[in-house]
Amino acid sequence: MAAAQLTPAHLSERHRPTLDRALEAIRTRAYWSPHPEHPKAYGEDGSLSAADGLAAHRAVLGSRFDLDQPGTDGWTGGEVSPYGPALGVEYPHADADVLLPAMRAGLGAWRDAGPETRALVCLEVLARISARTHEFAHAVMHTSGQAFMMAFQAGGPHAQDRGLEAVAYAYAEQTRTPREAGWSKPQGKRDPLELRKTFTPVGRGVSLVIGCNTFPTWNGYPGLFASLATGNAVLVKPHPRAVLPLALTVRIARDVLAEAGFDPNLVALAVERPGEGIAKTLAVRPEIRIIDYTGSTGFGDWLEANARQAQVYTEKAGVNTVVVDSTDDYKGMLSNLAFSLSLYSGQMCTTPQNLLIPRDGIATEAGPKSYDEVVADLAAAVDGLLGDDARANGLLGALVNPDVKARLEAAAGLGEVALPSREVVNPDFPDAVVRTPLMVKLDGSKPDAEAAYMSECFGPVSFAVAVDSTADALELLRRTVREKGAMTVGAYTTSADVERAVEEVCLEESAQLSLNLTGGVYVNQTAAFSDFHGSGGNPAANAALCDGAFVANRFRVVEVRRPA
Amino acid sequence: MAAAQLTPAHLSERHRPTLDRALEAIRTRAYWSPHPEHPKAYGEDGSLSAADGLAAHRAVLGSRFDLDQPGTDGWTGGEVSPYGPALGVEYPHADADVLLPAMRAGLGAWRDAGPETRALVCLEVLARISARTHEFAHAVMHTSGQAFMMAFQAGGPHAQDRGLEAVAYAYAEQTRTPREAGWSKPQGKRDPLELRKTFTPVGRGVSLVIGCNTFPTWNGYPGLFASLATGNAVLVKPHPRAVLPLALTVRIARDVLAEAGFDPNLVALAVERPGEGIAKTLAVRPEIRIIDYTGSTGFGDWLEANARQAQVYTEKAGVNTVVVDSTDDYKGMLSNLAFSLSLYSGQMCTTPQNLLIPRDGIATEAGPKSYDEVVADLAAAVDGLLGDDARANGLLGALVNPDVKARLEAAAGLGEVALPSREVVNPDFPDAVVRTPLMVKLDGSKPDAEAAYMSECFGPVSFAVAVDSTADALELLRRTVREKGAMTVGAYTTSADVERAVEEVCLEESAQLSLNLTGGVYVNQTAAFSDFHGSGGNPAANAALCDGAFVANRFRVVEVRRPA
Repeated sequence: MAAAQLTPAHLSERHRPTLDRALEAIRTRAYWSPHPEHPKAYGEDGSLSAADGLAAHRAVLGSRFDLDQPGTDGWTGGEVSPYGPALGVEYPHADADVLLPAMRAGLGAWRDAGPETRALVCLEVLARISARTHEFAHAVMHTSGQAFMMAFQAGGPHAQDRGLEAVAYAYAEQTRTPREAGWSKPQGKRDPLELRKTFTPVGRGVSLVIGCNTFPTWNGYPGLFASLATGNAVLVKPHPRAVLPLALTVRIARDVLAEAGFDPNLVALAVERPGEGIAKTLAVRPEIRIIDYTGSTGFGDWLEANARQAQVYTEKAGVNTVVVDSTDDYKGMLSNLAFSLSLYSGQMCTTPQNLLIPRDGIATEAGPKSYDEVVADLAAAVDGLLGDDARANGLLGALVNPDVKARLEAAAGLGEVALPSREVVNPDFPDAVVRTPLMVKLDGSKPDAEAAYMSECFGPVSFAVAVDSTADALELLRRTVREKGAMTVGAYTTSADVERAVEEVCLEESAQLSLNLTGGVYVNQTAAFSDFHGSGGNPAANAALCDGAFVANRFRVVEVRRPA
Repeated sequence: MAAAQLTPAHLSERHRPTLDRALEAIRTRAYWSPHPEHPKAYGEDGSLSAADGLAAHRAVLGSRFDLDQPGTDGWTGGEVSPYGPALGVEYPHADADVLLPAMRAGLGAWRDAGPETRALVCLEVLARISARTHEFAHAVMHTSGQAFMMAFQAGGPHAQDRGLEAVAYAYAEQTRTPREAGWSKPQGKRDPLELRKTFTPVGRGVSLVIGCNTFPTWNGYPGLFASLATGNAVLVKPHPRAVLPLALTVRIARDVLAEAGFDPNLVALAVERPGEGIAKTLAVRPEIRIIDYTGSTGFGDWLEANARQAQVYTEKAGVNTVVVDSTDDYKGMLSNLAFSLSLYSGQMCTTPQNLLIPRDGIATEAGPKSYDEVVADLAAAVDGLLGDDARANGLLGALVNPDVKARLEAAAGLGEVALPSREVVNPDFPDAVVRTPLMVKLDGSKPDAEAAYMSECFGPVSFAVAVDSTADALELLRRTVREKGAMTVGAYTTSADVERAVEEVCLEESAQLSLNLTGGVYVNQTAAFSDFHGSGGNPAANAALCDGAFVANRFRVVEVRRPA
């Protein structure tokens, strides 16, 4: 593509309608996405087909991934797919003392470009990523361990949606204040005081995105695009086990920036040598003014406490709860929960962990069901869902790392196993560690059980917690959200009073609630432009994806006033 | 007033047009204010006349200011007017262990009221404050030391404007997301997935406003009203020397809340006993989720580092600079600067401190002026402005506390005095400490001068810093803003190149710039709805008054989704 194609006029022609549509979507929060979910939707109009995407992925394996970045002082990389093969890709290692100043060099021109051009450049980056969704799917699959279809959708269109959503919020926020204003203050009989004022959104500097292992693009794009669109440079520090999807992203962003006449160093990659721990040193560099982080509570808390020179947006651990009070669609409830527990082997920050079930059982349209029956029926639903190995592989993916496997194995000793985890063989990738979810019964009234259900057990582990009553469940829900945080809360009830009560807990503790999901929408999935991911109001995350607060402090408005 | 008058319908009828007008003003940033600046505009339509305001003020002196707050465990107060008299007012002292839980009790109903009702209740509070502007003027005058007219305007209509501006931003931010949305996702030939979603803005909890001595209402109202309008309770901790204006505010807010059917404890006052230092203990209470602070850098930094459970908005010290390069209105420049240096004896966070003047002089429409001439002419302009004692008293007010006086006296030893400070007698208040501004010459190339001009010398002190060139001035400006922060920057130049260069520094260092002010607008004054106060992007303040970022994180949006 020739540079001349990326003039503001061309960018506007290509992407302004999409930006406008995204702005409308975040206002109405109705369903919308410009990024097709179906793999067969790709392959025309310049996008890679399934075969071309796979070929592109294979071409990068075993290669040196050059980005032509300043300060490259060596090469590093040791990604091994959770499905077995080593990726063999080497990435540039950066000397931060050279790279960070170089990233600042283009900030003035990027600021002067203004909010619309920045948004349109971001949309071009997203459009090129979208066209290579098939390639990204393989990159996400072989770093996160997600099954192909999930890697395709969550790592592709859904991640792109979240990036576009962030761009829309960033654009809206920056354009709330006009570029210029006249100001005329009456002075009675004297002439009015008159000033001409200009207002310029200015980024804070260099923004650091610290990526995670499980959702490198989905969790990485909101911060990356929010910061870039608000006039910052963005340094992407991927998780060492999930570099490739973000390296591809950085390369595309650098290409687009250069073609649009901006400094490609506005986006750069920082990959660490084994054990180097560069996130900690980068995070406190004076150039770094914004940090987006997804990962452990320990490091998230450390960032919030120590990276005082930066705005810090964190998504950390939480304990997600589903309150089971009653239902008029017992089978629908079971199949919906079974899917939620199984998807990506429960390795989502939104997967339910604690299922709170009254020990005296629940009312259903098929008559009362005891606690044991509910647990057994849910276990059977999971078994049924995953009974076929091909289907199980397509849903579970692989365990992302040995820590998850170790946690899963230890969890079987925490209580009575209601649903044992079983190994599934993946015929295409015999080295993949594939496990079905484990469900353990715990008695909520026993103090020794609390240590289990009040901690995040990240992976395919859930606890069927017997509680004295729904009221007891709600108190435990409240305490869990308040003390441990939650990305999601689910509840099943046919009672209007219980519905109000669980809503009240979620409103008071700032947790996102899904009620009575029995169909094809799951508590662990959120849709960009409509659903908020996290609330930013409980310990699981200090920000929500995506709202005004997520973008408003990534830039400041500088006013210049002079006599008219 | 009967409670029935404050129904949502009545509130809407009274205040919705004002809210709409305020929403328009923050979008256009044209001049607007619903609060008259002239004292004679008051006295009809239920507002207090000058005489009635003075009488109301006198009635409160020497009395016990009861607020009927829970947890009152004694009485305290020792305000002494900078004009001499002790106010003799006693305020309730609160047991935080009782008061804070009581403040949380009304949060649910306040949340359920929704953004519009909350905004309209805030506007009723502001309207009642406005009606008592004459009374507030005396309260502000006798706590801050501002002269009457300034106390009237800055402590009255301008403060009310800033409060209303915060309400408008809060309302706009909370209503960006609809209350409800339908969501229908196509599924090819199958039925679409359909959800009904509700979105509820929820406050974070109790918000703490830590007031300052110099501008109790102007600096207190933005945080107070932003937090209240976003669904929080607000605990107001005034500066011990400036309690009365905020106590009056709290009483009015409690009255309005009660009349509108809400818990009056949503707004409460916390006054400390001498030396008690309650700001530090309150700031880290778990109930406190938001803090607004204006004051020293030391305590502001402490709050940011230690009140980790809260969102912290701080306005701290800074060093404001005026770059003098050239002018085509020499007299206008001198009189404008003379006024800025004199107003309230320079006790504004926005008052210029460092005047950077090339040692080879500047070009003016009246021919070249040497450094010495510019300094002498500016000194003469200040002398002329303040030559008449009545006028001087009306402009200067009184020194707010002995620290300012001590700093002023010490500053005379920092260099060659270009303009000595003189005592002015206030015939109405012989005990008032009234001083004209001091100007000291410093050589910017001398390292020993740097300690003076690179520190904030709060009070009627300015430094005429001789610099090698305008380019040198810009480098010093940049370094000053970056290292010390600035609430304001001013510049005088007839050169388009210099204008661009100073703009570039301010854009890069995030400082608000006023260019070539020679008339009735001053660098130290900002107008709500149009000018941002501070940028939030340099060390002088981490927030701007008022923008989206100032309100967006005071609440979170909780979503509830269920099958349609």
